[in-house]
Amino acid sequence: MSRYSKRMEHIRASEIREILKLTQRPGLISFAGGLPAPELFPVKELIEINEEVLKNHSNQALQYGLTEGYGPLRKAIAKRMEKVHVKTHGENILVISGSQQGLDFTAKIFLDKDDVVLCESPTYLGAINAFKAYEPKFVEVETDEDGMVMEDLEKKLKENKNIKLIYVIPDFQNPSGITWSINRRKKLVELANKYDVVIVEDSPYGELRFEGEILPAVMHYDTQDRVIFLGTFSKTLCPGMRIGWVAASKEILNKYILVKQGADLQSSTITQMEIARFMEEYDYDGHIEKIKEVYGKRRDLMMDTIKKEFPEGIKYNYPEGGLFTWIELPEYIDTRKLALKALEENVAFIPGGSFYPNGGHENAFRLNFSNMEEDRIVEGIKRLGKVLKEELHQ
Amino acid sequence: MSRYSKRMEHIRASEIREILKLTQRPGLISFAGGLPAPELFPVKELIEINEEVLKNHSNQALQYGLTEGYGPLRKAIAKRMEKVHVKTHGENILVISGSQQGLDFTAKIFLDKDDVVLCESPTYLGAINAFKAYEPKFVEVETDEDGMVMEDLEKKLKENKNIKLIYVIPDFQNPSGITWSINRRKKLVELANKYDVVIVEDSPYGELRFEGEILPAVMHYDTQDRVIFLGTFSKTLCPGMRIGWVAASKEILNKYILVKQGADLQSSTITQMEIARFMEEYDYDGHIEKIKEVYGKRRDLMMDTIKKEFPEGIKYNYPEGGLFTWIELPEYIDTRKLALKALEENVAFIPGGSFYPNGGHENAFRLNFSNMEEDRIVEGIKRLGKVLKEELHQ
Repeated sequence: MSRYSKRMEHIRASEIREILKLTQRPGLISFAGGLPAPELFPVKELIEINEEVLKNHSNQALQYGLTEGYGPLRKAIAKRMEKVHVKTHGENILVISGSQQGLDFTAKIFLDKDDVVLCESPTYLGAINAFKAYEPKFVEVETDEDGMVMEDLEKKLKENKNIKLIYVIPDFQNPSGITWSINRRKKLVELANKYDVVIVEDSPYGELRFEGEILPAVMHYDTQDRVIFLGTFSKTLCPGMRIGWVAASKEILNKYILVKQGADLQSSTITQMEIARFMEEYDYDGHIEKIKEVYGKRRDLMMDTIKKEFPEGIKYNYPEGGLFTWIELPEYIDTRKLALKALEENVAFIPGGSFYPNGGHENAFRLNFSNMEEDRIVEGIKRLGKVLKEELHQ
Repeated sequence: MSRYSKRMEHIRASEIREILKLTQRPGLISFAGGLPAPELFPVKELIEINEEVLKNHSNQALQYGLTEGYGPLRKAIAKRMEKVHVKTHGENILVISGSQQGLDFTAKIFLDKDDVVLCESPTYLGAINAFKAYEPKFVEVETDEDGMVMEDLEKKLKENKNIKLIYVIPDFQNPSGITWSINRRKKLVELANKYDVVIVEDSPYGELRFEGEILPAVMHYDTQDRVIFLGTFSKTLCPGMRIGWVAASKEILNKYILVKQGADLQSSTITQMEIARFMEEYDYDGHIEKIKEVYGKRRDLMMDTIKKEFPEGIKYNYPEGGLFTWIELPEYIDTRKLALKALEENVAFIPGGSFYPNGGHENAFRLNFSNMEEDRIVEGIKRLGKVLKEELHQ
């Protein structure tokens, strides 16, 4: 008998976290991580806030608090969700330690061994890893530039038993950069209602739209309390503080609260108080505008340089927001090998195969454009273009 | 088919967390939570440290970091473990979000459904709740004032199949306040070796000894890399920051790192940097001395007042450190009902039944002495004495 549980056989190191270790090497141009631009972190504001919170509220800020989260933060988050057209209340929000924790909790709450998760193809690597610990089956649903293909979704809803979750990232998807159309969002809710399945809407980037209007979240179309929304401050404020949230009906949220209690009691009290104050007393809107401006320029520059420097025979998408774009190469290219060649040129990206829970698709890769400054984006894409030209039969 | 996973049937709200909600009511004298004294939080130092970290290292502090934790903190923790006579290294330390997270991870890594956990009787409620999500069987081992009774431990090691873990809190146990003798610690390791079982040593209070010498951790006696040590800053610094650690062999620690990756990627970067600086550059020893002095006085005052004010026919232990003492009443008393009567007098405690995974033992309760100031301890114990005198047939 193994000393470990059976579930441990399914848990592998995330390729992203392993590559991130490499990217700490100096001089590397990294398009690998999903790292925000550190020069945009609101440092001066956080120093002020921390001092105010500790000077006036240390007894509360450094003490245990409620599992549900700090009341004013829950309220501020509920109000903020109006930006994605969701009407909700503080009591429907649980504060968690980054939305990754929400993925782990979701699996814990819903998945028994061999239950089915329907997901986009490709889908977020971190979700695959979090879910795998609970030994589900992943069924990938065909996904195009408007989201899951609804005919294929319905086919798979019909074909499979024990479907517990439909997991989607509707805005500026990680890794593909695509955004679901409004029609697909509506239809997704209709099908979930018809087949009585819970939808998990993972939305780390929803507010980071560089052009056009923010689209209503899938949760906006929910009529039967079946959408669970995962949000985070990692991309709009900073990831180092590890604060995110779950929004759900009270019945479902209560399950998350129970699981949170056993998992780590609560998220950091002081950090919650700080973020609440940042949202209430500082210019959070203005801060996000600044991020969008900088990332929008970086996106433009990356896409323009790709157009100029990458060889023919390559497909890529044009993300309207978020942090990533996605490159598809001819099928004979293995991007795991390509990644090693790119590293020789001091450029990093994440090979696409990791984003398919059932494997395959080694001919794509993900590029991040938020973390590198403009000249390094140009230089990095040029170097990648050179590597690609060597590898592709022209 | 339920929409939720089967494990959710086992997860209940923690009585402690529910009672903690009540204790926010003004004027209540609470011996319920395991809350440290907020007036001892090193507020001035944390303001200085936060400013220094954000002014000079914001790019790192607010960004994603490695799952394993912040290197200098891992080193400082490893060094600190010399206090409990454990020699280890930074690479053997994983930083987690409070030791509660270590309990959840432990269960995830080791327990399949119906696997057996041997534990003290009573044992920590938070561990019971964390473990229950993974559907194990709890086998309680007879426990006296020196720790688990070794004859009973060996009996249960022989009798049960699929024993995966022996879970112990050897110092100032929660809830009983007892401390394991050195002989029992040695014998525990011997038996674990003989029956090839992993030991989880949960040690949130090891350094908070008010008299005599700190005893070597169980891990000190480990010769086969089978002890996993869970530590925390919640009681020696503050709980609101949510930082703890796992110390283990590299093979075992690697499992924890994998699980941490899926569960929440990493603990707060900035908080880790702050605690590392507090340990390296401030008087952490002096800070702990101050805590010990204050808690030692509160313990004395509580025990003296209990002696004076509680009726005959009650057993209680004398904790040499930590945060709790434990009161045993005649068997005809139900302390869940007693707790309601005490609340009418504005005094709160945790009924003992919650600390027995297999139920029973409703005639005991836990008292915390760290959180209330001296006059309120005296007043609260007097009120409790009055309630007890009314309830006990004298």
